[in-house]
Amino acid sequence: MPKTDGERVVADLKRLAEFGRYKTGVHRPTYSTEDVASRQWLAGKFAEAGLEPVIDGIGNVIGRNPGAGRRLLVGSHSETQPHGGWLDGALGVIYGLELARAVAADPALAGLGIEAVAWADEEGHYGNMLGSRSFTGGLSEAEIEVAASRDGKPLSQALADSGFAGRPRELLDPSRYVGYLEAHIEQGNTLESAGSRIGIVEGIVGIWNYWVTLSGEQNHAGTTQMSRRKDAGSAMVRLATRINDRFAEIAGQRANSRTVWTIGRMLLDPNAPSIVPGRAEMQVQFRDIDTDILALFERNLHELVGDADRAGPCRAAIVPLSKTAPAAMDPGFQTLIEAAAERHAPGGHLRMPSGAGHDAQILSRRIRSGMMFVPSLKGISHHWAEDTKEADIVLGAQVFADAAAAILQAG
Amino acid sequence: MPKTDGERVVADLKRLAEFGRYKTGVHRPTYSTEDVASRQWLAGKFAEAGLEPVIDGIGNVIGRNPGAGRRLLVGSHSETQPHGGWLDGALGVIYGLELARAVAADPALAGLGIEAVAWADEEGHYGNMLGSRSFTGGLSEAEIEVAASRDGKPLSQALADSGFAGRPRELLDPSRYVGYLEAHIEQGNTLESAGSRIGIVEGIVGIWNYWVTLSGEQNHAGTTQMSRRKDAGSAMVRLATRINDRFAEIAGQRANSRTVWTIGRMLLDPNAPSIVPGRAEMQVQFRDIDTDILALFERNLHELVGDADRAGPCRAAIVPLSKTAPAAMDPGFQTLIEAAAERHAPGGHLRMPSGAGHDAQILSRRIRSGMMFVPSLKGISHHWAEDTKEADIVLGAQVFADAAAAILQAG
Repeated sequence: MPKTDGERVVADLKRLAEFGRYKTGVHRPTYSTEDVASRQWLAGKFAEAGLEPVIDGIGNVIGRNPGAGRRLLVGSHSETQPHGGWLDGALGVIYGLELARAVAADPALAGLGIEAVAWADEEGHYGNMLGSRSFTGGLSEAEIEVAASRDGKPLSQALADSGFAGRPRELLDPSRYVGYLEAHIEQGNTLESAGSRIGIVEGIVGIWNYWVTLSGEQNHAGTTQMSRRKDAGSAMVRLATRINDRFAEIAGQRANSRTVWTIGRMLLDPNAPSIVPGRAEMQVQFRDIDTDILALFERNLHELVGDADRAGPCRAAIVPLSKTAPAAMDPGFQTLIEAAAERHAPGGHLRMPSGAGHDAQILSRRIRSGMMFVPSLKGISHHWAEDTKEADIVLGAQVFADAAAAILQAG
Repeated sequence: MPKTDGERVVADLKRLAEFGRYKTGVHRPTYSTEDVASRQWLAGKFAEAGLEPVIDGIGNVIGRNPGAGRRLLVGSHSETQPHGGWLDGALGVIYGLELARAVAADPALAGLGIEAVAWADEEGHYGNMLGSRSFTGGLSEAEIEVAASRDGKPLSQALADSGFAGRPRELLDPSRYVGYLEAHIEQGNTLESAGSRIGIVEGIVGIWNYWVTLSGEQNHAGTTQMSRRKDAGSAMVRLATRINDRFAEIAGQRANSRTVWTIGRMLLDPNAPSIVPGRAEMQVQFRDIDTDILALFERNLHELVGDADRAGPCRAAIVPLSKTAPAAMDPGFQTLIEAAAERHAPGGHLRMPSGAGHDAQILSRRIRSGMMFVPSLKGISHHWAEDTKEADIVLGAQVFADAAAAILQAG
């Protein structure tokens, strides 16, 4: 088994965090000066580990391993959210680097083909998982041409500024790989609250989103009697509460339900204290790794909106916004990650879904993929205060390396 | 009884509506060029009616009647909401003008002292009922100095531009008046739906406003399990629905309840589809002409917010924002308006509260006051589409004049 160096892992994570340091976290948006510098640094580290580094036309940093037979691709993304955490995807990138070094250092492991990767823009500064989608052939030139950051900078400009424009974009050849393995912080507190140190990801949830609209009649809040009102705001809060109650009821009928749902965005029109709202909108989202469960929630949502519409006095309508498919992680990979976790942290691991999106969901459409979590202190994520106990970082690197070796040996 | 000329009333209303015409309505904000011109036109019309017009330092146009003994002050406000209706307060101003003319034309009515008024800024472009508050001594120079329009123009600048700055502000001498009588469009559809043509206002509602705040914990909508969430949005919609249900229950226990309540403004923070809201706020308002009823609603609101706070997991808090006192209209005035209405529209009148604020509520603090409504087509108000049947406009002018004469004769 590869022998990882925990101190080196932590030191490299700290060095990487210097690119864009912000308080105890990092501000390193994709294609920023700091991000470009960090990718060049990573390419250098991949070279030191004996890999042949390439930074491609979308900014992916890949440490190629041309000599090996079948390879395992390992890594994560290296940019951060605005004023985000120092670990997040960087953790998985450095685990991949450390694994490559550990394998290179041990002649007994010479046959294990590790390729390391730092994907570009998983965090969506310019698009949706640009790097892994580009690598798997899911990103067109047309999309690149129209993409822009939230503050309006064109992706094409960002790529030109970073020096990546004009380079070829590396493409996955599935036949070269046993699969893809990614480590990441959990971003929630499931592991922490269970006292577990390693999460074995069973799948990455599908996310289904809907706009629900209530249409009533805008009126004067003083002169319109209650019996004559069609208050879209009242209709919205009643429907939202029914949705929350019904979804809790469905979830309660299943043991260990991991479905989550959120009404995170609501808008009243005109949203003025003395005007009966004529229109109200809310965005309803739910996530699960099981498409059947997602469909069950969807049926119930349609039923509740239909009931509200028939009951009146406001009209209720629903528009699906987006549906991502759940991505199952490879069962064999899960077994091997679990075995590695049990070796180093007996009883201290947990199978769980990933409620957040990850590059592994993109890779899993083309090759067998697996994912592993380490705990997030207090579940904090996408914030500069994000952190993980150093002992858990060190443990995670070794479990990751063991699991990767086992996956490659199993072939 | 004074004999009003319905055609002249309608013609003058149409002429006044030319100042700032917008589609079939009027855009005439206080102190705009059109508003200033319309006030000068009104002063001229008051003079033609035999009154001594003055435009004072806040823009009130008052047609003084120095010869009379005890006087009745009659009128309303003349500016409009942005892109507002052509009648609204203008109706009451022209009714006052027509009454002054009708009295002046009839030697038998020589003893009736009518003073006509067009108040400034009841609509709140620069403040809260500036004109009537100034006249009743409730507007300080300090408030004038700091007041500004929503787009930041200082009131002092607007007064200087309009030529009103530096003029004395006319002040009420209560001993000179029997009282104040105001006509206005209803702004709701109570009269229309009851098939009534005249509304006798029993009182102007008090408006009590509160901010209700829910504090939870902002979290990732994918990685935070339902059982660990403190979702301020869910807490808000549940509490809002409980408030709506409880208020309906209280109102349902009283025959002919006229209490209205509105949750017109809601804010989620950060209001993003994939973030569990950490904070939510809503503005709760209720209106009634009875302080005891307002206090009953307030007690129940406090109870519900307290229950929500104790139930958790979010904290719930309430902050009173503003409370205006209900303003009772003079019972004797109501009887005389009702008698005049019965004479001209037998059975076609209704006693009712005013759900909207009016200058009469300010005047009623100092002198006996009364108010009369004519129907609004479909209840539309504060919109350029606002209108009233011409026959109702004509009828209203005569009922107003009869009531005013009766009030003055009763002394």
